[in-house]
Amino acid sequence: MGEDSSVSPSTKAGKPCVFCAIVAGEQPADIVVDEPHALGFLDSHPLFLGHVLLVPREHVTTLKDLPAEQVERFFRTVQRMEAAVEEALDCDGSMVLNNNIVSQSVPHLHVHVIPRNRGDGLRFWLGPRKKYDGDAADYALRIATAYTSSA
Amino acid sequence: MGEDSSVSPSTKAGKPCVFCAIVAGEQPADIVVDEPHALGFLDSHPLFLGHVLLVPREHVTTLKDLPAEQVERFFRTVQRMEAAVEEALDCDGSMVLNNNIVSQSVPHLHVHVIPRNRGDGLRFWLGPRKKYDGDAADYALRIATAYTSSA
Repeated sequence: MGEDSSVSPSTKAGKPCVFCAIVAGEQPADIVVDEPHALGFLDSHPLFLGHVLLVPREHVTTLKDLPAEQVERFFRTVQRMEAAVEEALDCDGSMVLNNNIVSQSVPHLHVHVIPRNRGDGLRFWLGPRKKYDGDAADYALRIATAYTSSA
Repeated sequence: MGEDSSVSPSTKAGKPCVFCAIVAGEQPADIVVDEPHALGFLDSHPLFLGHVLLVPREHVTTLKDLPAEQVERFFRTVQRMEAAVEEALDCDGSMVLNNNIVSQSVPHLHVHVIPRNRGDGLRFWLGPRKKYDGDAADYALRIATAYTSSA
């Protein structure tokens, strides 16, 4: 990312990255897992209690920025965290998500592992879903082309 | 999972798995990516146009059920799909998520890659977020214990 690794990266607004500060131990958090490649801690504004954030120690912004060699161990941690949250809280299920740029409150990759229960009231979307106007195949082709060109 | 691999797995309700049917080519879908380990296709009820679902070919229910040896290549595909959706649709960002059991409409692991734009109106939650009542450290410990025991 080009930052001096001896200081915490800054956001575009010039503020230090709060997740880098947590990784560095400079800011308190309720730590859940502390591993060489990843740190997990409670979201301080949880959707539901036990809502965990998993971050790579290295400051990257979005999922696609996570170095390829880190993908396996990072998502193995995500898998294990899904199981741990469900077991520890005895909940019905979970939601695992990450926001990239839009709705991303901290520009340091973080995967949410959120406990869910049936009837918990979480709603994604207030309005109707979209509909394709005969152009689904065109959307599929455009995305497929971009995907293939990234090989 | 114990199913006869020559037939599509069934859901608890006895209906065949629609995503296995898509993987098998028995049900139409707008295919975006067709790889040995994963299939990507358009969600037929998209949150936003270009909303892609990625599924492992093998029928597993939740993220934690994905065999360890498939995690790297599956999530490398997810990463590349994030980039492809953003590039193809020229959108501001994306949301990558998977629901496990709760809100999981098809019990075959599927990761959503959803194009996002600023001001697109997506809302997660109608009410306030939860607050810890001095018990955050207890939640962190319970989840950490379950995580560690899964090593």
